[in-house]
This record gives sequence, structure tokens and C-alpha cells, in this order.
Amino acid sequence: MNKYEHTDPAVLLTLEESLEKGDYNVAIELIRSLHPADQAKVFNELKPDKQKELIQKLEIPEIADIFDELDDQQTLTAARNLPLPFLADIIDDMDPDEAADLLGDLSGQEVQKTISLMEEPEEVLPLLLYDDETAGGRMTTDFLVLDPGDTAETAIQYLRSSGLETDIPYYLFVVDDEKQLLGVTGLRELICAEPDQEIKEIMNIHVVNVQAMEDQEEAARVMKHYDLSALPVLNKKGHLVGVISHDDILDVLAEETTEDIYRLASVSDSALEPESKIFQQLKGRLPWLLLNTVTALIGSWVISNFGDLFVKVAVLAFFQSVVAAQGGNAASQNVAMIVRSLALGKVEPKRVWPILIRQIAVGLILGSVIGIIVGIGVGFWQSNPYLGLVLGLALCGNMLVASIVGTLAPLLLEFVGQDPALASSVVVTAITDIIGFLIFLSLASIFLPLIQQYI
Amino acid sequence: MNKYEHTDPAVLLTLEESLEKGDYNVAIELIRSLHPADQAKVFNELKPDKQKELIQKLEIPEIADIFDELDDQQTLTAARNLPLPFLADIIDDMDPDEAADLLGDLSGQEVQKTISLMEEPEEVLPLLLYDDETAGGRMTTDFLVLDPGDTAETAIQYLRSSGLETDIPYYLFVVDDEKQLLGVTGLRELICAEPDQEIKEIMNIHVVNVQAMEDQEEAARVMKHYDLSALPVLNKKGHLVGVISHDDILDVLAEETTEDIYRLASVSDSALEPESKIFQQLKGRLPWLLLNTVTALIGSWVISNFGDLFVKVAVLAFFQSVVAAQGGNAASQNVAMIVRSLALGKVEPKRVWPILIRQIAVGLILGSVIGIIVGIGVGFWQSNPYLGLVLGLALCGNMLVASIVGTLAPLLLEFVGQDPALASSVVVTAITDIIGFLIFLSLASIFLPLIQQYI
Repeated sequence: MNKYEHTDPAVLLTLEESLEKGDYNVAIELIRSLHPADQAKVFNELKPDKQKELIQKLEIPEIADIFDELDDQQTLTAARNLPLPFLADIIDDMDPDEAADLLGDLSGQEVQKTISLMEEPEEVLPLLLYDDETAGGRMTTDFLVLDPGDTAETAIQYLRSSGLETDIPYYLFVVDDEKQLLGVTGLRELICAEPDQEIKEIMNIHVVNVQAMEDQEEAARVMKHYDLSALPVLNKKGHLVGVISHDDILDVLAEETTEDIYRLASVSDSALEPESKIFQQLKGRLPWLLLNTVTALIGSWVISNFGDLFVKVAVLAFFQSVVAAQGGNAASQNVAMIVRSLALGKVEPKRVWPILIRQIAVGLILGSVIGIIVGIGVGFWQSNPYLGLVLGLALCGNMLVASIVGTLAPLLLEFVGQDPALASSVVVTAITDIIGFLIFLSLASIFLPLIQQYI
Repeated sequence: MNKYEHTDPAVLLTLEESLEKGDYNVAIELIRSLHPADQAKVFNELKPDKQKELIQKLEIPEIADIFDELDDQQTLTAARNLPLPFLADIIDDMDPDEAADLLGDLSGQEVQKTISLMEEPEEVLPLLLYDDETAGGRMTTDFLVLDPGDTAETAIQYLRSSGLETDIPYYLFVVDDEKQLLGVTGLRELICAEPDQEIKEIMNIHVVNVQAMEDQEEAARVMKHYDLSALPVLNKKGHLVGVISHDDILDVLAEETTEDIYRLASVSDSALEPESKIFQQLKGRLPWLLLNTVTALIGSWVISNFGDLFVKVAVLAFFQSVVAAQGGNAASQNVAMIVRSLALGKVEPKRVWPILIRQIAVGLILGSVIGIIVGIGVGFWQSNPYLGLVLGLALCGNMLVASIVGTLAPLLLEFVGQDPALASSVVVTAITDIIGFLIFLSLASIFLPLIQQYI
């Protein structure tokens, strides 16, 4: 088996079988033939008791590699029932940032005990200071620094002696005695320099950096904007405390995307998965649905004020939802475009006027096209031209409203520092529903004598 | 001004003013003080005539750097009116992958002429073979290769002589005379090796790679899974033809996310932005809205079959939308969770049964809670317990339907090789609307005598 191939379903099957039979040598050989990323994937698909059996048979550094690759939640599950001294050894061997995440997920007592049992807690401890969602929470402390007075040759000697294993292998950060960040250089620059050239002559003093307390999304945005594969993290004093690497940013972007997609669909817990525990699903979904219920009932109340209409012209009840639904659909399109453009930095909230004018134009055209088609179609279907007219006008009006609300709501949320994706269903479709009913039924009241002529 | 700082709004203002006054030295000095990523950002915010003026004053390599950083569409706009010999010089200096994208966007005649005017078309030509959305379309041809028989020392000499500028500076690919990929090594391994060690002894022969014709999303998935910062691309014969770098994958992921979010909101053109041309917006939004209109009218037709009901009990018209809307909301939550879990590889389509059972349970609970609350609330509001009962049952039933449809539709689309995000509004909410009306009005017909007792 090639060490760097994707996981074949046969691997999992063979692994399960050999664990079932107690054939641990086969199981371990199989695991060792895989890339750590695939080891983690297969490990995660095993049942908890099999995971535990396997852990007992693997070497500590091997378990640490697998834990590094698992999701935080998966690592916690696998780590939960291990004896603390054993867990401390594993954590010692994990990447500092992953180790800190795991420690942060343990209970207070377990953390203290585990740290006291660790051999090298000093790499991990500083990381515990920062919240998971900050730059400091994402960074690693496993990186190399150089002195500005080193020569290229001594720097290369130092790299040779420090061996191959480090999270950030190609960027070398230059700091003074106080750990103040002075510059950055790379292996390639070192190789190309004259042996006796000093680091301060070859380093680049313009280093993009980020504050440790900064939101991880800002760190991701900066790395993406400048195409960086490593971003130094500074504390308040300007001391270099860690580095974020290119693979961390992928995780940040994935989290951010899930959050946006979930919020647009009124799911508040972005850790939710289709097979998450039922209670967790209810917690992440029910509150929004309840809020939507309230707004839907407000819509019902609006309609109830036109109660007599339906007795006179029952046909109105067939079409009120079309007006509301199309407004909601158009508004969702708007919200998606604005949310995404804001996330990609393609829209400045201050450009609200040109955007709004453009969207009003688009909304009017969309509303006119759909209003005319539906108006004429329903006019003929129900043999009632005035019903068609009222429906067409209401559709056009509500889609205009949808454009305005769907554009302004996310921009406004961004402007006040909230997540624009929250604009989605609750605010926006509530408004388009209510206004849709209101426009349609008001127009129907006005045109009632004319509509009744044809019934 | 720090060369590596974000763009200050004052920069754009000063630049515009100096261009307005014809004070080109100030303008150029200002531009040169910025990082290319920020140069591109500022350049893109200038009016087209100012862009043109600025281009005429900058050096060719500076323009190439800016073009490298712009979006494909922005580059095309800026390149459009330049004389072809001048454009050919710029393209010669651009990154090969960006150059190929630009050439691919020009008209057939322009391409031929531009290539004939280029000094070094051989770096770009192979890239024109591949579609933009494939691995081959994303890769660069600007990378370094080593011979397996080289020693570490000669390899380092070669790197020194080849200078600093290359798209993939830290990975070194080892190929034979036929360009067959044999292995990979890195600068760090070279430095740590003995000077007379041969590359074939230090290289890693397990190289994750991707076929040039493969979808770019697969390349992104592989790079993310294995935390790679460079992925070699092979042609059908196994020859190394290019390398994809870590910043390309960010662009791929961003495109993919936009596509998902847009499809979930029924926007079919993922290049759409809030200020895109009106015609482009109509093209990307109107077809879906029309399709939604058709399904909404089918809902109207369903309701019309219960027309007499509203004459007898107008109050039914107030609440039918609540049932339809809550079904749609619950289904959207389901679709979002499934789409996102599929995108992150957290769900296998074959796990359809356990997922479905879990979601049916969640749907039943959500439906019961909301059904009971709304049923009791409306029962009291309208002083009509049977109306409340019908409404509560309909809500519960429709949210169960929503869970099933919202789960199965995206999984089914994935299973047949389509984008699961297409399941969104059209299919799923059409079904929850129609079934919602059907359940509510059917139940109301059955309970009609009881409901009428209280009116």
C-alpha cells in the first residue's frame, strides 16, 4: 500500500476484522502504512471500544500524530477515557496548538493534573492564554527564530542541528533578545546569501503580523490577501509568541463558511452535523424555528384583518402565498449575494447607495417580469383580469420590497458589527411575508368590486 | 508608509488626486510603497481612464505584479485596451498560471497575436491546454526540479544560481529524463543532508499528486486533507507538468463556497456581485425565480381544490401559510446541514439510513413542539380548539415531511453526481409548500363540522 493514497473502504474493513480477531500486528501494520491524515480518518470510523484497543497497541508518537489530525471533538472523545499519565505523554508529543486545544476541552481538574504530569508543558502553556477563536488560539509555538547578528552560515548550521521536525519549516523569524520581531527570512534566502552575510542584511523588515487577541478570521483574511503561508503572531508588547501556518487558515475558513451557510439557513450551532445528538440538534434549530413561528403568526394576524375578503372572494386565499414566497425568494438571493461579497471583501458597507440603487432596479425588473407573467396567467386561469392585475402588482411591489430589505438588512448588520448572515430568514423573510400579504390583500380590497364582477 | 500594511482609504484618495493633477511621480511612488496585493486593491478602485494612465507610467514588471493579484475579470478589463505588443510584454512577466488565465479570456485572434509577440511563450502554452476549473488550469509551470543523481551540494549550488524568484520556492520535485515524477524533497532536507548525499537517498518517494484533467475541487480537497502547501500535477503519461500552490487552493475553496451559498439561495451564477450588470443579475436570478413561480402556482392549484372551505371558514386562509413556511424552514436547515457535511467530507452518502432515522426523530420533535405551541396558541386566539388541533397536526406532519425531503434530496443529488446544493429552494421548499397546504386543508376538511361549531 502506498503511504500517500486516499483511504480505500477495504482498509477500514480489514482493520475492523483484524481488531475483532485480536490480530493486532496486522492492524498496526495497516495503520502504519497510512498517511497520518488517513490514519485519523480510519481511526475516527472505528467504534469507541476498538479505538481504545488500538490506542493501547500504538506507540505514543503515533497516537499523538493521529490526535493532531482529528477534529477537536473527535480528539476529546478518544482522549476521554485514557489514564491521565498516559494522556500527558501523548499531549507532550502532539503539536502545541492541537495539544492546547485538547487541554482547553478537558475539565479544570483534569487540565491541572495532566499539565503536572507533562514533561514539556512550556510549549503548550502560553497557548492556553488565548481563546480558541483568536489568532493566539490558532498559532503554534513550534517555530524557528534567528538572531539578527547571525551569519547565513551559522544560521544554516543552527538549522542543521535543530533537525527536520518543526511546524513552520521554511520561514525563519528574526527577533532581538527581548523577542521583539525584527524581520523574516526564508531558507531560500539563506542558501542564496553569501556565507558571511549577516541575517539583518538579508531579512525582510516588512513583516505582516497579527495580534494574538485578534479574531482568527482576521488572521485568515490577512494570510489570504497577502498569499502568506505563515503569519507571525505578536503579544501586546510586540513579542513574537507564535506563528499561524497555511493549514490552520484552511480550518478557519471552513469554520467560517459553515457558520455562514448555517446562519443563512437559521441553524445557530455550526458544530451541528446530520448525525449529531438529538438534543444538540434541537438546541441549534428550535429557537430559530420558534422565532420564525412568531413572525409567521404575525403574518396570520395581518391576514386575519382581511378576514371578510375570503368569504366574498375565496380565490384570494389561493394566491396570497405566491406573493409572499416570491418576495422571500428574491430577498434570499439578495442576502446571499451581499453576505458573500462582504465575506470576500468585495463590498464596502459604505457603498450602500450604489448597491441599493442597482438592486432596486433589478428587483423592479424581476418583479415586473414575474408580475406580468403570473398576472396574465392567473387572469386567464381564473377568468378574472382584475385578480390578475392585483396579483401582478402585488408581486412587483413585494419583490421591490424584497430587494430593499434583502440588501439593507445584511449591510446594516455588518455596519453595526454583527454577522450579516443573521439577516436571513427571520428578519428578511418575515418582512417580505408580512408586506406581501399586506400589499396583496390591500390591493384586493381596493379592487374588490371589480374582482367580484367576474366571479 | 510600511510596505506591508493594509490599504488606508487615504492612499486611494491621494492616488486619485495626484493622477487628477497629473502628478505622476507622487502616484508612482505611492504605488511602489505598497505590497502588490494592496497595489492591486487600490488599482482596482480607480476609474478605467485613471487605470490606463497609471499603467502607462509603471514599469512592465510592476504592471505584471498587479495583474497577477487582480481577479481574472478585473485583469481582463484592465488589459482590454492595451496595445498588443505592450500586453505581450506584460504577460511575459506575469505568473504563468495567471498569464494563461488572461490569455484564455482574450478572443481567439488576440491570443494568437499576443503569443506570437511574446518572448517566452513556452511557460504559458502548456497551461492553455487545460480548462480553468481543472488542476491543470490552476497549476503553475514555474517550479524547480532536481535530478535523482544530483548530490545535496550540487542541488544547493543549482538553487543558488537559479535565484530567488519562483512560485514554489520550498518544494523540490525529483524527475527522471522523461519528466516522470520520482519523489519530492525540500530545502530543509537539502540543508540537513550530507553534502555528498544523493537526492535519491533523501527524497520522499511517496508523493501525493493529482491528474491535470482532475477537477480543481479534488485538488483542493487533497491538499487540505494532507495539509500540503504544494501539489504536483501529472499528465496522463505521469510526467510532471505543473504544481499547485497553497494560495491557489484558497481561491478554489472561495469559489466553491460562493457556489454553494448561491445555489442554496437559488442564484445560479456564482460570479454575481451586488453591483454586477443588471442583465447578468437577471440571467443568474430570473430563471430560478420563474421555476419557483411555477411551483408556487402548483401550490395555488392545490389550495384551489379546497376553494369552498374558505367561504365556509375564512379563518383557514390565515394559517395555511404558517404550515407551509415552517416546513420550508425546517427543510432548509436540513439541506444546509447535509450540503455542508458532504462538502467537508463528514458524511458518506451511503450512511443515508442512520442519518434519515436521526432526522426523522428530530423532525418529529421539532414538529411536536411547534405544533403544540401554535395549536394551543391559535386555539385560544381564535377560540376554536379544533382549528388549533388541525393546525398543530398539520405543522407536525409537514415538519416530518420536511425532515425526510430535506435529508434525502441533497443526498440523492450527491449520489447521482449532482451538486447537493441544488436541492435547496426549488425542489425541497416546493414539496414542503405543497404538502403543507395539502395536509392542513385535508385535515380541515375532515374536521370541518367540528371547526364550524365554534365559528
